[in-house]
Amino acid sequence: MDTVVAALGQRARGAARMLARAPTAQKADALTRAATAMRAAAPAILAANAQDMAAAAHLSPAMRDRLLLDPVRLESVAAALEAVAGLPDPVGRTIDATERPNGLKLARIRVPIGVIGIIYESRPNVTADAAALCVMAGNVAILRGGSEAVHSNHALHAAFVTGLVAAGLPADAVQLVPTQDRAAVGAMLAAADTLDLIIPRGGKGLVARVQAEARVPVLAHLDGVNHVYVDASANPAMAARIVRDAKLRRTGVCGAMECLLIDRAYPDPASLVRGLADAGCEVRAGAALRELAPELSQARGSDWGREYLDAVAAADLVDGVEGAIAHIARYGSHHTDAIVTEDVGVAELFLAEVDSAIVLWNASTQFADGGEFGLGAEIGIATGRLHARGPVALEGLTTYKWVGRGSGQVRG
Amino acid sequence: MDTVVAALGQRARGAARMLARAPTAQKADALTRAATAMRAAAPAILAANAQDMAAAAHLSPAMRDRLLLDPVRLESVAAALEAVAGLPDPVGRTIDATERPNGLKLARIRVPIGVIGIIYESRPNVTADAAALCVMAGNVAILRGGSEAVHSNHALHAAFVTGLVAAGLPADAVQLVPTQDRAAVGAMLAAADTLDLIIPRGGKGLVARVQAEARVPVLAHLDGVNHVYVDASANPAMAARIVRDAKLRRTGVCGAMECLLIDRAYPDPASLVRGLADAGCEVRAGAALRELAPELSQARGSDWGREYLDAVAAADLVDGVEGAIAHIARYGSHHTDAIVTEDVGVAELFLAEVDSAIVLWNASTQFADGGEFGLGAEIGIATGRLHARGPVALEGLTTYKWVGRGSGQVRG
Repeated sequence: MDTVVAALGQRARGAARMLARAPTAQKADALTRAATAMRAAAPAILAANAQDMAAAAHLSPAMRDRLLLDPVRLESVAAALEAVAGLPDPVGRTIDATERPNGLKLARIRVPIGVIGIIYESRPNVTADAAALCVMAGNVAILRGGSEAVHSNHALHAAFVTGLVAAGLPADAVQLVPTQDRAAVGAMLAAADTLDLIIPRGGKGLVARVQAEARVPVLAHLDGVNHVYVDASANPAMAARIVRDAKLRRTGVCGAMECLLIDRAYPDPASLVRGLADAGCEVRAGAALRELAPELSQARGSDWGREYLDAVAAADLVDGVEGAIAHIARYGSHHTDAIVTEDVGVAELFLAEVDSAIVLWNASTQFADGGEFGLGAEIGIATGRLHARGPVALEGLTTYKWVGRGSGQVRG
Repeated sequence: MDTVVAALGQRARGAARMLARAPTAQKADALTRAATAMRAAAPAILAANAQDMAAAAHLSPAMRDRLLLDPVRLESVAAALEAVAGLPDPVGRTIDATERPNGLKLARIRVPIGVIGIIYESRPNVTADAAALCVMAGNVAILRGGSEAVHSNHALHAAFVTGLVAAGLPADAVQLVPTQDRAAVGAMLAAADTLDLIIPRGGKGLVARVQAEARVPVLAHLDGVNHVYVDASANPAMAARIVRDAKLRRTGVCGAMECLLIDRAYPDPASLVRGLADAGCEVRAGAALRELAPELSQARGSDWGREYLDAVAAADLVDGVEGAIAHIARYGSHHTDAIVTEDVGVAELFLAEVDSAIVLWNASTQFADGGEFGLGAEIGIATGRLHARGPVALEGLTTYKWVGRGSGQVRG
């Protein structure tokens, strides 16, 4: 297995140098041509997906839905490639520049990371999305999708490579690991000479395995145990609207609210949680809140810090913004947390003290999304602290080098 | 051992929240007071160092020199604290900001990384330098120095903590691992819940162990196998000056040149290498170069890609800039590489294609230093690709968060 990954890696290194120097127009052309190739290959891709779906009868409806491609979804995959092709290219951009007293001119210039391994599950669109972001940022991608999507992934990958080659980029710029053997994941995690970065996209089991085993740097995307805190000073109508959107707009996304915290001094906590319950959410209330709304179910210890990804939320009263900050510090996952308040001082305290990748004031946690942040796309929401945090798109897939231009300077 | 590190970590988490919100003036005050405390404690620190030196009779002269503190060196340690106190504080700085069409105002704001573990060897000044940079960037530091410097490190740490406490910052903001048991390093490397980042500073053995074992993100500082390429178009006097400085100004620093590559079309390669040899450098020449200067010793295979850290250099002829780029891609360590040329096109090709943290044109590799780059200090030269590359100072010890300010926006 190591030799399979090593062979992929060797081809990837060769391609990486070409990708790193590819002009923006050529990278964009490759993505546009890949979109065209995907539309042309739609019958083959949908047939491959039908094969995967036929073998997926034992999976849950939610997993089958993630796996499914239809003409509308396939068109949105192709359109996403065209959208990435239109994004500004970070490679070559100057981060900052200075001239030293000795005349040495220094600049930090964005360059690709190199070879990026993406390990993902079920959703076949990741094959195209991740490849597009990697290529547009000048990186080579080695993709390892889930076994349940193997036929779909191969068909999408073939169309993508058609686009690369048509634009004069190497086919090896995006490679699919040719085996579903689980040992291939282990080989990727150990391949520090081959891969510069691994991005896991999937459930807790996958991410936990990656974090436990990886010898390659990881840009992790962990749970979104996201909180909305409603302060005493909140506008009640705004609070109700934000809480409902944060929980129920889509319950399966990582930006969904999982826990509602209400200031003990808020005028009518019971109305707020009842509004959420009436909208179809099961509210599991802590003891203090349940005294005000005894019809709610009782939260257990395991409900705090839990990611439901469903129409369920934990909720409780807290002692003001400090209580909310302490609760989030204890139970949050450093993903996205929001406050609803009309008090700027309280808001700024929350924004400063809550240690999450994204902190929001008077806005729904469901904005946690690269597209909504103006990045044009995203490869995920990073919950680690190093390199990139929150929505990661093209810039997060680059690094930098220091370039110094002198006229014979020595330190002497 | 895990419990020792866990106890340090628990105290560190408490201190981290205070450090993260400490104003710039308070952090600077702590460093200034630490410098004062170090000067006041000079007799105790030098006595502690004498104890370490007495136990170090078996070490090499180079290691003993790294270990030694004297009044002049101690004063420069104290002065370095004051210099860091005067640096601009990156915490709270806005990286970029935007307003979305829906009115949501987004900004990326620099925040501390959190708790940083530093694992280092011999040089006791790292105790003060690393602590100062971590604190100024709002981080808590857990320091694990080498056993040979244990008394010096404890004395320097005690003075540093005096400064922290005098400025009203928690003593736990900088903690020294209280045992020299090697298992403590293993416990730090595994402490993903305790440490947000590990920075190893030391020899190959230490860095290799850290990279092999760490479950915590690592900012690695590997070898500097640095090249100077002298192009056919180089100004010969400038080339001689740069090559000599790059190799011989200080041979033990990570920015020293280890390999000289000369364009086959350069007018007089023999003079260039003879100049370096005459200045006191042993030149180990490849076959092609040795034909021109047969008095040089013969390079073996192991001389390519080797970090001598001594008055020794490998040297060879290459086929122009493309030959140099290929040689560096094969043997370099992605640290610092330089070109000497009068041809801007050749220079720009080298700067673009050589994949090193620092690439220089017509300047000595010995500029690879945070101070020389205007960063005011450095915790090291990072040779990895993620998060920070090249000289790492305050900014590299921070991360960012996304802060969004809305007026009730929902995604709907």
